[in-house]
Amino acid sequence: MEQRWKEEDFLSCSGSNKFAKEMTAVAPFADIDHALRSARNIWFNKVDVNGWLEAFAAHPEIGTTSKPMSQWSKEEQTTAMATANDSTMKELHDWNARYKEKFGFVFLICASGRGSLEILAELKRRYDNRPFVELGIAAEEEMKVIELRLGKFFHSKLRMSSETAK
Amino acid sequence: MEQRWKEEDFLSCSGSNKFAKEMTAVAPFADIDHALRSARNIWFNKVDVNGWLEAFAAHPEIGTTSKPMSQWSKEEQTTAMATANDSTMKELHDWNARYKEKFGFVFLICASGRGSLEILAELKRRYDNRPFVELGIAAEEEMKVIELRLGKFFHSKLRMSSETAK
Repeated sequence: MEQRWKEEDFLSCSGSNKFAKEMTAVAPFADIDHALRSARNIWFNKVDVNGWLEAFAAHPEIGTTSKPMSQWSKEEQTTAMATANDSTMKELHDWNARYKEKFGFVFLICASGRGSLEILAELKRRYDNRPFVELGIAAEEEMKVIELRLGKFFHSKLRMSSETAK
Repeated sequence: MEQRWKEEDFLSCSGSNKFAKEMTAVAPFADIDHALRSARNIWFNKVDVNGWLEAFAAHPEIGTTSKPMSQWSKEEQTTAMATANDSTMKELHDWNARYKEKFGFVFLICASGRGSLEILAELKRRYDNRPFVELGIAAEEEMKVIELRLGKFFHSKLRMSSETAK
């Protein structure tokens, strides 16, 4: 079974160039667990705070409709968008702006399966955190996003390689 | 007793513009404790990670002799410089470079009263930390530097205002 991994694949899992480079150096992976373990190790032990900020900056604001967004960001926000009315969207937008003003980066949450009201409540709750604490939480959320996306990639690579082998 | 505080005063305590602005908004202070409490609150609760990195970037590399350095940085490194021989200086320089490569910011330690070998041992020990953990330690060290410098400033302001009052 041959998996062909390119740096761009990892860059679409996380916007940190360091993360993508280190993952490319480790690939290919024995199995999905190997890929996830490598990703956790690289994200938490090798990517520095500048790399974290770079990855955060690659995310669209939750609930935004104005900026171009990757297919994956759209999929992850499906539930949020389906459950949002205009006033929730407005409030999300306002709180996103307050959050970014306080912490210096976009509010990051693994939105998959979460409704807009749940996300808004979480944003308000996290707004009270100290900047350092919030940085750690945002990094954990980014890790969840990486795991989700890496899983999708892994399965599509497996499918491709098994189709090639037929 | 009138203390005249300017934003530049706080900028020479810490290179974060946000820190200096917020301190200026709180000044003047009832006493040194008020000043220190305000500084801790602002540094840990209001300055975001970008502000921390901005403050770190204002420090010279420990043991450096090539860059221009503030009088205060020189004073804080007096013990380190007096106890360093050429090989320690070379090793400090090499480890500083490794540290910066891993963490993305300069190694920061409240050097006041510390010898060069102690600083080098601490640098090697801290090098093994995760980037997020190290960011927190560096911020605590920066806070110690701020406390030292604020104390010096506070006493000089007090002296100036009592001389004016004579």
